Amino acid sequence: MGNVLDGLAGIVGDDKVTAKEEDLLRYAVDQAPVTDFQLPLAVVFPESVADVQAVVRSCAAAGIAIVPRGAGTGVSGGAHATRNSIILSLERMDRILAINADDETAVVEPGVVNAVLNEAVAPYGLMYAPDPASFRSSTIGGNVATNAGGLRCAKYGVTRDSVLALDVVLADGSLIHTGHQTFKGVAGYDLTGLLVGSEGTLGIVVGVTVRLKYLPQEVHTIAAFYPDFRSAAAGVLAVGKARVQPAIMELLDGGTLAQLDDLYGSDLRARGRSLLLVQTDGFGAAAEADVVRRVLQAGGATVTTEASAEAERLVELRRHSRGAEVDDEYRVGEDVAVPRSRLVDYVAALESMAAQYQVQLKVVAHAGDGNLHPTFWIERQADAVDPDAMERLQSALDHSITEALAVGGTITGEHGVGQYKLRWLGQEQPEAVRELQRRIKDLFDPSGILNPGKAI
Amino acid sequence: MGNVLDGLAGIVGDDKVTAKEEDLLRYAVDQAPVTDFQLPLAVVFPESVADVQAVVRSCAAAGIAIVPRGAGTGVSGGAHATRNSIILSLERMDRILAINADDETAVVEPGVVNAVLNEAVAPYGLMYAPDPASFRSSTIGGNVATNAGGLRCAKYGVTRDSVLALDVVLADGSLIHTGHQTFKGVAGYDLTGLLVGSEGTLGIVVGVTVRLKYLPQEVHTIAAFYPDFRSAAAGVLAVGKARVQPAIMELLDGGTLAQLDDLYGSDLRARGRSLLLVQTDGFGAAAEADVVRRVLQAGGATVTTEASAEAERLVELRRHSRGAEVDDEYRVGEDVAVPRSRLVDYVAALESMAAQYQVQLKVVAHAGDGNLHPTFWIERQADAVDPDAMERLQSALDHSITEALAVGGTITGEHGVGQYKLRWLGQEQPEAVRELQRRIKDLFDPSGILNPGKAI
Repeated sequence: MGNVLDGLAGIVGDDKVTAKEEDLLRYAVDQAPVTDFQLPLAVVFPESVADVQAVVRSCAAAGIAIVPRGAGTGVSGGAHATRNSIILSLERMDRILAINADDETAVVEPGVVNAVLNEAVAPYGLMYAPDPASFRSSTIGGNVATNAGGLRCAKYGVTRDSVLALDVVLADGSLIHTGHQTFKGVAGYDLTGLLVGSEGTLGIVVGVTVRLKYLPQEVHTIAAFYPDFRSAAAGVLAVGKARVQPAIMELLDGGTLAQLDDLYGSDLRARGRSLLLVQTDGFGAAAEADVVRRVLQAGGATVTTEASAEAERLVELRRHSRGAEVDDEYRVGEDVAVPRSRLVDYVAALESMAAQYQVQLKVVAHAGDGNLHPTFWIERQADAVDPDAMERLQSALDHSITEALAVGGTITGEHGVGQYKLRWLGQEQPEAVRELQRRIKDLFDPSGILNPGKAI
Repeated sequence: MGNVLDGLAGIVGDDKVTAKEEDLLRYAVDQAPVTDFQLPLAVVFPESVADVQAVVRSCAAAGIAIVPRGAGTGVSGGAHATRNSIILSLERMDRILAINADDETAVVEPGVVNAVLNEAVAPYGLMYAPDPASFRSSTIGGNVATNAGGLRCAKYGVTRDSVLALDVVLADGSLIHTGHQTFKGVAGYDLTGLLVGSEGTLGIVVGVTVRLKYLPQEVHTIAAFYPDFRSAAAGVLAVGKARVQPAIMELLDGGTLAQLDDLYGSDLRARGRSLLLVQTDGFGAAAEADVVRRVLQAGGATVTTEASAEAERLVELRRHSRGAEVDDEYRVGEDVAVPRSRLVDYVAALESMAAQYQVQLKVVAHAGDGNLHPTFWIERQADAVDPDAMERLQSALDHSITEALAVGGTITGEHGVGQYKLRWLGQEQPEAVRELQRRIKDLFDPSGILNPGKAI
């Protein structure tokens, strides 16, 4: 291990490598539950593409695994250290290399924080559309690794839809460029799409060309309170049937409202047992908002007459609905997606499961996408946990996955498989499809040094 | 060859196989220039997934290449027969298997014609967004094979953006399902994205789950005539700077206007030397159209005061601007895309090239995407062609490609590489990137029987 450290320091410089225990501990995991804790051998902070290439070559020669990491905000364990690994933190590669306002594109290093890019392009009337709840701290590189979604994807698409081209360091240390600088391009296979969402298992993204969208000049936000969650979920379908495409359509259950009240002193729970937040934007925002209000009221909602600003505050609260809590083995946030028409039934099934397994449940959903984030948890009592409760929690999780798949859903809408969701992947994808992916992995990374044991 | 025919007929039935010369001739090529004419051994018309699997297994055993084909409207030669090949025409697999209106998805067989799907979902207020100019005859399977674009992509995306899942027969005859039925899904690698645009070289698409978008209730169309093409191209940037996202933004040069006048008796050429057609849609369509009119007038355009219906007729004319002409070795339509800011300069460069090489030129562009379709041609005189003119035509084509790449563009925005554009692919993609694609091809199709010599 001393050799590894000395070797890496010799290659990239002392100030870019650490093996201090506090650093190793801090970088060992992301925000997902930990099932197999491992300390990395070292944490390396490359500052250039050449640094990344040198580290990859060195690790390839030494047979050491590389776990790339952005801000560590992932919730599937994609950035958890594995045995005999180093963490490659790309946080220092945080330069915006170009903003091409007329082309409506930007070129960034992977460590650029999502919100920082948005601030930089806003003066041009542009935005980087994907907005995971972690946008204030998560990096574009991390967003690319997981093909991150967010609140606005129903209208603006996920990360993949905003990525035009990538610079990628492959497992042998070579650098390739994929994709195109233009909005459209179909020359050859879509390597860019293959790499987006591959969680650093096929290559290390060191540069990203993104397409920017127009910052809407008008935004309308509607808060609709419901007496129960199922009626609120039905409201999502009603908006769809009115053929209005909101930018944001977020569904919060009673448990989430209660938690927000606790954290922020709001009075949401007193106003309803479920909240549907809808934001329309663009030139048609006002007209769309009118239609949305009408159909939600017809569905039994109490629609706020308050100014949009108040409803916007609720959207901000929603963005923080994960709060300061970090998932652990006692509290697991999921990320299933189901076909939109199954939202109502699936939510009802979740509620039954919580009762059946005697676990706590709260649900928020990017409802426009059918993407649900149920959180199941059990209470810890003075650091002691009932082992039976732990088992019930796992049963509830497994059941919720089985049910999502049974209604035509997926185990992960936007968080990625990482390490934590691997146990369920075989339920979604048959062996032939998994084997095809393993062979692609072997093709890109024959020695298996790139983020092993993740994603597939 | 008799054996091949008998074998295939024995497997799928006599009525699904032909080797009549007129059929072989008809199915030997698509609408691209032909540089290496080959007659297929047979044309097979599978009617089920099982038929496709049986044909693939049989061809794999016999070492015969399979060229999958939709409607044959491709213009890059992706469906040209190659040596020792059969054509696998998927036109009979044309059932819409499901329309899930609440989920906003549909499941189709590959032979469903684009316009037929749109007609089927329109009563639900839905549309299938990708609209290649050939939408009245081209199939969804063919659209998937080339990752087809169209007029509406600047706002609604290309085929990839509307495809959620695929059923694919692999080179060994096995059937896999990729993707998800939900809008979002990040479980494992994006095999769906890898297959879209792979031109049948990795597998044969036998089923497609598409996401539908909302049919806009309001559409406004603006026709802006300009004294020259460069001013019209500048108008595209002006609309972008006003942060309006039209659904359609088509640019037609003087040559195209003259051709439309000849074909349809219109008077476009008398009204300007270039035409920019802009269509806005959705709840904000009227407000967006107002902004568009203002910025185009400010840029020197004569904006039609006529009713939107008249401008819509021009959009229909534009959809037919390829007319009845089919590209051949004397007339080649290209498909470059450039960063939007380079549109004006690139168009000027094209005009210089036409003059330099003494060839004819007309240009239409999906200008919102920076995707240009210049057509270069030389006149044939009574079946005799000046060999020097042929050489000048090829020089103009090569020059236009080199120039597009020099300004950051791509050799193909939406038509695919097929067979015809292979000669330019090496200019866009370095050897390492091409080799990676060859290895992916080898992984999927080790014997090389799936549409060999295409795409990569």
